[in-house]
Amino acid sequence: MKPQSRLCIELPDWIAPLLPADPLPDPAARMALVLELASGNVQHGTGGPFAAAVFDSAHRLVAAGVNLVTTLSCSSAHAEIVALSLAEQAVGSYRLPPDHELVVSAEPCAMCLGAIPWSGVDRLLTSATDADVRAIGFDEGSKPDDWVGTLTRRGITVQREVLGSEGRAVLEAYRAAGGEIYNGHAALSGDAGD
Amino acid sequence: MKPQSRLCIELPDWIAPLLPADPLPDPAARMALVLELASGNVQHGTGGPFAAAVFDSAHRLVAAGVNLVTTLSCSSAHAEIVALSLAEQAVGSYRLPPDHELVVSAEPCAMCLGAIPWSGVDRLLTSATDADVRAIGFDEGSKPDDWVGTLTRRGITVQREVLGSEGRAVLEAYRAAGGEIYNGHAALSGDAGD
Repeated sequence: MKPQSRLCIELPDWIAPLLPADPLPDPAARMALVLELASGNVQHGTGGPFAAAVFDSAHRLVAAGVNLVTTLSCSSAHAEIVALSLAEQAVGSYRLPPDHELVVSAEPCAMCLGAIPWSGVDRLLTSATDADVRAIGFDEGSKPDDWVGTLTRRGITVQREVLGSEGRAVLEAYRAAGGEIYNGHAALSGDAGD
Repeated sequence: MKPQSRLCIELPDWIAPLLPADPLPDPAARMALVLELASGNVQHGTGGPFAAAVFDSAHRLVAAGVNLVTTLSCSSAHAEIVALSLAEQAVGSYRLPPDHELVVSAEPCAMCLGAIPWSGVDRLLTSATDADVRAIGFDEGSKPDDWVGTLTRRGITVQREVLGSEGRAVLEAYRAAGGEIYNGHAALSGDAGD
């Protein structure tokens, strides 16, 4: 097998027309956009029921992301990683400028939780809870019990359950449609961090 | 600012000639390759002092990765994420087949720790410890105290400090050369998970 040396992360074509050029000063409007993308990802069959977006200090969209695990064959192509990576491309730095925000359709898994401080975002907005994510069969990984505290102690503020019931509805639509559950290694026994 | 919709992860040109076609049945030989890549990344100035590789059940290389955070302007382009993503491209699945192994030059940060179970690897080999990584100024994130247990409880075996002093030497060479330390949000106060 020839070792691969390239992977391109690209958003599906249906996304660009949905992205606003104007700022979205209302946090609920920013979340509504992200939930529209998560829902679109289910409807278009382009990945798991998750989306994320990065906004700058003027509440202008810097980059959006959707979960592309199944379509890219890439286990780390979670919506948060995609959105943060594309936002970093947009600003031309591995560290986002001050006062940038990550808005996500569901609370992050252990990997994405670890990725958030590396990006430099100052604020996290979430919709569905990790209990909601687990309820449809996804694994969130071994997160610290006080996962919010691991962010706030780094100066990252967290606002949870923004449009929470709408976020939960996206997950339920995915389950109802028989969407693929693409976990890796499940815990073999009780894991306190799970 | 136009939202970006594409990011390509590509290995530097100096890597391909170093990759073996034959299997490497000795774990120390697999680690020696990874440390050669980590060291090469420092010497070529193509990223942080970290490398990783995925091997299949016959100890044949599936994909290699090096840290590309600074060169790609991508905070999540850690060696583990690069190697796992390219390995998944090589096998054409977001879940690696049974008995695949991830060999890394240093113990994983919180993000990469979270990513490992999603990839499906069954074994992790590490060289430098996370204390070694922190000693040269890098942040490993909020890892669970028993981070090894979070993997073993998922059926992933962990073998630590394989060629540990050689792994530490790569980190020290990076520090001695004045290599960039590219942390994101540091902890503002004591974080038990750090």
